[in-house]
Amino acid sequence: MANAVSPLAVPLPELPPLAGVRLSATEAGIRYQGRTDVVMIEVAPNSTVAGVFTANKCPGAPIDWCRTSLKGGKARMVVVNAGNANVFTGKAGHDACAATAGAAAKMANCPPKQVFVASTGVIGEVLPHDKIVAALPVLQNGLAEDNWEAAARGIMTTDTFPKAATRTAQIGDATVRITGIAKGSGMIAPDMATMLCFVFTDAKIPADALQAMLKKGVDASFNCTTVDSDTSTSDTVLLIATGQTKHARIPSADHKAGRNRVLADFATALDDLLLDLALQVTGDGEGAQKRVRIDVTGAVTAKSAKRIAMAVANSPLVKTAIAGEDANWGRIVMAVGKSGEPADRDKLSIGVGGVWMAKEGAVIPGYDETPVVQHMKGLEVEIAIDMGLGKGKATAWTCDLTHGYIDINGSYRS
Amino acid sequence: MANAVSPLAVPLPELPPLAGVRLSATEAGIRYQGRTDVVMIEVAPNSTVAGVFTANKCPGAPIDWCRTSLKGGKARMVVVNAGNANVFTGKAGHDACAATAGAAAKMANCPPKQVFVASTGVIGEVLPHDKIVAALPVLQNGLAEDNWEAAARGIMTTDTFPKAATRTAQIGDATVRITGIAKGSGMIAPDMATMLCFVFTDAKIPADALQAMLKKGVDASFNCTTVDSDTSTSDTVLLIATGQTKHARIPSADHKAGRNRVLADFATALDDLLLDLALQVTGDGEGAQKRVRIDVTGAVTAKSAKRIAMAVANSPLVKTAIAGEDANWGRIVMAVGKSGEPADRDKLSIGVGGVWMAKEGAVIPGYDETPVVQHMKGLEVEIAIDMGLGKGKATAWTCDLTHGYIDINGSYRS
Repeated sequence: MANAVSPLAVPLPELPPLAGVRLSATEAGIRYQGRTDVVMIEVAPNSTVAGVFTANKCPGAPIDWCRTSLKGGKARMVVVNAGNANVFTGKAGHDACAATAGAAAKMANCPPKQVFVASTGVIGEVLPHDKIVAALPVLQNGLAEDNWEAAARGIMTTDTFPKAATRTAQIGDATVRITGIAKGSGMIAPDMATMLCFVFTDAKIPADALQAMLKKGVDASFNCTTVDSDTSTSDTVLLIATGQTKHARIPSADHKAGRNRVLADFATALDDLLLDLALQVTGDGEGAQKRVRIDVTGAVTAKSAKRIAMAVANSPLVKTAIAGEDANWGRIVMAVGKSGEPADRDKLSIGVGGVWMAKEGAVIPGYDETPVVQHMKGLEVEIAIDMGLGKGKATAWTCDLTHGYIDINGSYRS
Repeated sequence: MANAVSPLAVPLPELPPLAGVRLSATEAGIRYQGRTDVVMIEVAPNSTVAGVFTANKCPGAPIDWCRTSLKGGKARMVVVNAGNANVFTGKAGHDACAATAGAAAKMANCPPKQVFVASTGVIGEVLPHDKIVAALPVLQNGLAEDNWEAAARGIMTTDTFPKAATRTAQIGDATVRITGIAKGSGMIAPDMATMLCFVFTDAKIPADALQAMLKKGVDASFNCTTVDSDTSTSDTVLLIATGQTKHARIPSADHKAGRNRVLADFATALDDLLLDLALQVTGDGEGAQKRVRIDVTGAVTAKSAKRIAMAVANSPLVKTAIAGEDANWGRIVMAVGKSGEPADRDKLSIGVGGVWMAKEGAVIPGYDETPVVQHMKGLEVEIAIDMGLGKGKATAWTCDLTHGYIDINGSYRS
C-alpha cells in the first residue's frame, strides 16, 4: 500500500552508533517485494533485557516466545519480520519461532532463549520461517553499528515514515546513550499495524531494574496513546542494555523503594524517548491528519483521569469532529460521561486550544471562538478537561478519524 | 442533512389505534425548517409508566426530569422535541423541562411529574422551550389515535427512515396490543442521533411489573446493539400502559419470582418488539450499508459472552473490514482478545455466514471461501465465535463503518 506520508511525520534523527549493538536488514520476500522485510539486531554477550507485551488475550506466537525467553533476563539477538504476524497459526506458529531462534542462536553461539523474535503483518497465515532462516546468513554478514535507519525501515508495515529516537543520560559521571526504533500506525491492522518498539542502551543495568523502568515508561507513553481503540495481538516493547559503557554499578531494583536513585536521570531520558516514539506512532495513525492531546485534571484519582482521557481519545465522534476541524465540546462531554468514571456535569469544564469553552455545566456565553477555530486548523489539537472534583490528572494522545482510516482498513485483503 | 435512505430501511408497519393513546406532531422551528420537530403523546389518566435511561454520567436535563418523575409511576403525557438535546445547559436545562412539563400538565389537568419530556439534537445550546410551549395548544388540538406515523417522523434527527413496530399478546383470555416508535442512528451525535423509544400498551400493568419487564427487554435488545461505541447523554426508553383493555388483574411484580407468569406472553411480545426497534436503529446507523450479527457461544459465562460480542461489535477494524466485504477473521480474533475476557487462542473458532473459517487456533485448511465471499456481499453479515470454554452465549448487533460515517460526523456543525 502506498499511502501519502503523514503530515505529522518527523525526520529521522541522527542515530550515532551505540556500543554493543549491530544491525542489518534485508529482503526475505515474506510478503512484500522490492523492500527490506527482515531485520537482525545483534547485541553484546551478557546484555540484559526487559519487555512489555500486548494485553490482548489472543497473542501471537512470538509474544509467547518472548515472554518465556524474558525469564532468563539475557538477550543476544533480535530477529524481526514484517508482512506476516505469525498470529493464530496454531502449533506452526510456535515451530516458526523455535526454528528462527534456533538457527539464529547457532550463529550467535548462544541459547535459543537469548534470541527474541517479533513479527508483524497479516494474521492467520503460516509464517514462511524458512525464508527468514535462509536470510539469516545475509543478515549476519550485513551487521553494522550504523544501520539504525535500515532497521527502522525494515520493520515498517503501513507506516508512512520510519520512527526512531535517541537520548543521552548521566549515570554518575558517565554518559550513556539510549536509542530506540519503532513501527506502528494503528493499534493493529492485520494489513498491518502492530506496534513494535526496540530500545537499546550501552549502560549496564540488571534485568529487573530495566523491567521496572520499562513498565513505568510504557504506562506513561504507549499505554496513553490510541489510534482506534483496537489492541494488537503482537504489540512488543523490548529494552536491552549492552553494558558496554563503564559506570557505577547498578544494584538490582529495590521494588519497595521504587527506582534506583542513581538511575533517575536514565529513567527520565527513557520516559522521554518512549513518549517521543509513542507520539511518532500516533502521528502515523492510519489516515491521521492531526494529532490530539487530551489533558484531564481535577478527576477523583489519577487512574480515573486516565480512563476519562482514554474514553475521549477513543471516541469516534470526538475524532471525526476533529477531522472536521469542529471544536465540538458537546461530544467531549458525552465521551467524559460514557467513561463511567465519577463526573459531575455541573462542575465540568471543557477547553480547546487553551480557551475554556464550557464551564460549570454550560457553555461560556460569548467565549472567543476565533482562536479556537484557528487552533482546530492546525496539526496539533489540544483538549483540556477539568472535572472539578479532585486532584487526579492524566494525559492521552490520539489522532483524528478520517476517510483515510476507512480507505486503509476497509479495502479487501489482497 | 439529507442522507440517502439506509439500504437496511424497512417500511413502516400498519399501526392500528391503541386504546388510551392519542398523538400529534407539529413544526415548532426549534432547529429544522419545513418539517415537524415536536411531538405530543397523551395517554389515558392513571396510565402506568416504566423507563430505562442512558448510563452516561453526564446526562441531559430531560433525563434528570424523567428519572425523578418516574418515581410516581404514573404518566399522562409525553412531549418530545428534535433539534436540541437540552444537554449541558446548566440550570436553564432544568428550567426548560419544568416550563414545558408545567404548561403541558395544565392542559392535561395532571401534576407536572406525569408529563415526561425527551429532547434530541445538538448539545450545549439552551433549548428554546418557549417555542415548544407555544406549540402545545396546536399539538393538543391535533391529538388523534391514528397519528403514529406522524409521531414516528416528528422525533427523527439524522434518521433516514421512521421506525415503529407493533405486536399483540395474550393476557389470560384477552388480547392486548403493544406499539412502539423509536429514533436513533448513532449512539449519539450532537448533530444528532440519540436513541429515543416510546412504547405503549393498552394492558393494565402495575409500574413495577412494567419496569422489571422493560429492564430485561432493553438489556436483550438496545443494550446488545452498538453503532460506534459512543453513548448518548439522552438515551431514553419509556413503556406506558394505559389500562384500557380488560383482562385478569396483574399483581405487582414479585421480584424474587421474576416475571409474573400471566405476563409471560406479554413479556415475550415486548422483548420481540424492542429487538425489532433496536435492529431498526442499528440498521440506520450513520453511514451503515450492512447490519452485522455477532453470536458468541462457549464463553465461560453469559456476561463474558456479551462482553466479547460487544468488543467485536465495537471494533473499528472489524467494522471497516465488513464495509470492505472482507471476512477478515484475524481482526475478529484480535477483537475477542482485546475484550479482556477469558479466552484460549487454541480453542477459539470463528465462522462467517455459517462457514467455520478458523478452528482451534488456526485457519481451517481449504475451507470453502465461495459461500463466505457471497455472504459478505449481502446486507446482513453473521459472525459466529465459539470460545470453546463453557456454556455462556450472547448475541450483539452492529453495522459496518463506512465513509458515510465520516461524512456525517466529520462535517462542521452548521
